[in-house]
Amino acid sequence: MVDPRFFDTRAPARLDEIAAASGAELARGGPDRLIADVAPLDRAGAEHVSFLDNPKYAGQLARTGAGACFITPDQVSAAPENLALLVTARPRRAFAKAASFLHPTPPVVPGIAAGAEVAPSARIAASAAIGSNAVIGAGADIGADVEICAGAVIGPGVVIGAGTVVGAGAVVSHAVIGARGVIYPGARIGQPGFGFDADASGVVKIPHLGRVMVGDDVEIGANSVIDRGSAGDTVIGRGTMIDNLVHISHNCVVGNGCVIAAQCGIAGSTVLGDYVVMGGQVGVAGHLTIGDSVQIAGKAMVTKSVSSGQKIGGGLPAGEVTVWRRQVATFRRLSRKLMT
Amino acid sequence: MVDPRFFDTRAPARLDEIAAASGAELARGGPDRLIADVAPLDRAGAEHVSFLDNPKYAGQLARTGAGACFITPDQVSAAPENLALLVTARPRRAFAKAASFLHPTPPVVPGIAAGAEVAPSARIAASAAIGSNAVIGAGADIGADVEICAGAVIGPGVVIGAGTVVGAGAVVSHAVIGARGVIYPGARIGQPGFGFDADASGVVKIPHLGRVMVGDDVEIGANSVIDRGSAGDTVIGRGTMIDNLVHISHNCVVGNGCVIAAQCGIAGSTVLGDYVVMGGQVGVAGHLTIGDSVQIAGKAMVTKSVSSGQKIGGGLPAGEVTVWRRQVATFRRLSRKLMT
Amino acid sequence: MVDPRFFDTRAPARLDEIAAASGAELARGGPDRLIADVAPLDRAGAEHVSFLDNPKYAGQLARTGAGACFITPDQVSAAPENLALLVTARPRRAFAKAASFLHPTPPVVPGIAAGAEVAPSARIAASAAIGSNAVIGAGADIGADVEICAGAVIGPGVVIGAGTVVGAGAVVSHAVIGARGVIYPGARIGQPGFGFDADASGVVKIPHLGRVMVGDDVEIGANSVIDRGSAGDTVIGRGTMIDNLVHISHNCVVGNGCVIAAQCGIAGSTVLGDYVVMGGQVGVAGHLTIGDSVQIAGKAMVTKSVSSGQKIGGGLPAGEVTVWRRQVATFRRLSRKLMT
Repeated sequence: MVDPRFFDTRAPARLDEIAAASGAELARGGPDRLIADVAPLDRAGAEHVSFLDNPKYAGQLARTGAGACFITPDQVSAAPENLALLVTARPRRAFAKAASFLHPTPPVVPGIAAGAEVAPSARIAASAAIGSNAVIGAGADIGADVEICAGAVIGPGVVIGAGTVVGAGAVVSHAVIGARGVIYPGARIGQPGFGFDADASGVVKIPHLGRVMVGDDVEIGANSVIDRGSAGDTVIGRGTMIDNLVHISHNCVVGNGCVIAAQCGIAGSTVLGDYVVMGGQVGVAGHLTIGDSVQIAGKAMVTKSVSSGQKIGGGLPAGEVTVWRRQVATFRRLSRKLMT
Repeated sequence: MVDPRFFDTRAPARLDEIAAASGAELARGGPDRLIADVAPLDRAGAEHVSFLDNPKYAGQLARTGAGACFITPDQVSAAPENLALLVTARPRRAFAKAASFLHPTPPVVPGIAAGAEVAPSARIAASAAIGSNAVIGAGADIGADVEICAGAVIGPGVVIGAGTVVGAGAVVSHAVIGARGVIYPGARIGQPGFGFDADASGVVKIPHLGRVMVGDDVEIGANSVIDRGSAGDTVIGRGTMIDNLVHISHNCVVGNGCVIAAQCGIAGSTVLGDYVVMGGQVGVAGHLTIGDSVQIAGKAMVTKSVSSGQKIGGGLPAGEVTVWRRQVATFRRLSRKLMT
Repeated sequence: MVDPRFFDTRAPARLDEIAAASGAELARGGPDRLIADVAPLDRAGAEHVSFLDNPKYAGQLARTGAGACFITPDQVSAAPENLALLVTARPRRAFAKAASFLHPTPPVVPGIAAGAEVAPSARIAASAAIGSNAVIGAGADIGADVEICAGAVIGPGVVIGAGTVVGAGAVVSHAVIGARGVIYPGARIGQPGFGFDADASGVVKIPHLGRVMVGDDVEIGANSVIDRGSAGDTVIGRGTMIDNLVHISHNCVVGNGCVIAAQCGIAGSTVLGDYVVMGGQVGVAGHLTIGDSVQIAGKAMVTKSVSSGQKIGGGLPAGEVTVWRRQVATFRRLSRKLMT
């Protein structure tokens, strides 16, 4: 099912291997039945394992051609009799684990590829891989099993924790990056923030003498940008997931386990608690405090601090263009009428 | 008129050559008259060819110093007598063709430049050009007349169709790219999407085993990002134009001939029909269907599916800051008053 | 206080040296007292110089452990007796200068690093530094004291003015860049704009035969994109500061001393006067004129020209999600009721 040009596929695995790899219980079906791949319920054949998570798709269960299925205990009775069942409270999660098991990521091949330029004072773990034409600065510290992909640039003194992947063409400076993270292609981490003091005599740049401190298990999306702090550090907490084209300004502190969708922007010195979730294109003003577990709907404009646990949103969902124009006109007319 | 440091210019061309290259009819003026360059009506001299498309600029016609002009049939009678006329239904289009004719793009010089790292198993067409310090992965397939610019990184197995240009520093992985396209500098194509399953026991990443499939004649703007699919593919249809800093999530399907302006974001699994037009900074939620020929005004927040042919918009156009604050206050007051 | 892996620190400096470097007057304290570093009032020790700018923090003054402080004349009387005082009208600016003095940027080491590919016809000043794996095109002109960082790509004919830094992985083509500027990592300058003429017979690309002309002392943020002009040039005026992930379209003219925050987008041919200030995520439509000193609040949607000196804003600040939904419903209901 997957394109062999891009992904490796293990030889077919036994159902009991799939169960073990995914943490599900093989409730029905022979443990030595062979499974070649994963597939969605509506496209699966006898050699595939599928999953049912959202009850909305329960109708597909009766008609599926799949050989096996991850399923919650309460759906077992609805499953066709010939379908092998892997029971788990979290079918999608188990399916993800099975997919990773059947399509293993090739191990990193340690070594320094052709064209890479590594400063003599950089420390490169023996198990790390430095890609073609990557550049590693003086005194950088590249941990075990790290993969620095082609053309990435790691600045002087930067620390990359064990098992982290730095994508092609990414640039990291003035930063300490944790373990097991991913920095996707083209992300820019560690440049000075947008700060200056301007008057008639000219512009004086505020020196940015801080760093970017990134915890373990963090992902930073393609072409996202995280500026370093001015006096203190910019901080990204453990387990936080940042999507593509996100901007995080100098001195921001982002907590643990946050999820920040694509094209969000967070202005300087704003502090996010843990487990904050932001939809795409949200803008957060500077010097605010966003509490733990706050959820912010996409495209919201956040201008005030938000206390923990709140769900907030903003913006006018789009409508038919003549209706929208009428709404805008109404809005203007009412505000003129009522406030004068 | 153009800076010779950046553009080549052909020796002056005859009017009949210009007519042939642009598909216009030489209705008035000597076929052997020489034209050196293109220029707008208000800046053109006797050696230039200009154009009149928007009737708003018809006033410039009488005063122009241009030697020749692309013009629609209905404007011919308004043209000064000494102006050579190239008649066409589409003057701007003809002018663009004449400009391309007078300033030809230098041919790609085939070969592999210094510092490029090409995997031995990659297939590079004899007519393709691989720029300095570019990196081509194992098994990649680089078609005829393709230009991979300096520092670009093409991942293992990637296919680049004939005549496509991959800009400097762009990164392409897990993708099959059509012919005659342009991927501008810094675009990121093919990284896994933003998907994971999180609970108290930790985060499990959803494997992204799909690809990015890009049709022929597609342009993808500078620093734009297109993630690959999870199970299926992310698809960009033939002839679609994508501007800079656009984000297209995993599993999106974008139709043929769409136009997506800068900084738009489309969340996962959304499907766009053909000829959809989106202004800048639009955000489209995930799992929606946007019909054929839908037009979406800039900055709109699209939260529901849209049927074919609709024009939609959203957002409040900015106004003077005290008026805007009053509008926001009115909006809040009215909603409190009327809904409680 | 700063991390020595990333920043150099001068040996402790005398107070009179600090005063001279920052342009403040040493009003109290021994000129030969040694200062090791800068620090905020609440974290400073006897070896630090701090500053008090915002009167909101005056309370910290009495309790500070700092050895010296930049201060405005009117706050002098509130300072503890043992605190050395450096008096200036602009404490934050003086502090910035002191920080730069105590943490000097290492001088650029001239020369061409390993792996860089420099076209034989490029002119490289003797004092310029070309980083590892950077690429410099034919006929490019790299001025005195310029630093082209690792992996950056400078196209044919491009001019980089004296003292300018081009960050890692940035790409510049078809452009003339002034002196003393900074182009941050991953910025893309000079690609053709988003313009084409489409009809049933296909798409004709509008040739972009202009340039990007950038004045002196300009900063362009990480992963920002500035397209070149079609007939004329795209222009960025002297002293303008552009943050990360900003999009500036073809033919835009941005005046001097403008400040454009992150993720703004300006559509084609719009003209900005001098000293325009834009908050983050602003979108400006094409073909508009924005006057001198206009200030635009973050996330605004600017659809009309704005005269000089105006302050404008737009957008609905986010609120609690049920309140926001009620507001949107009110907005729709009122517009239906009142306009039909």
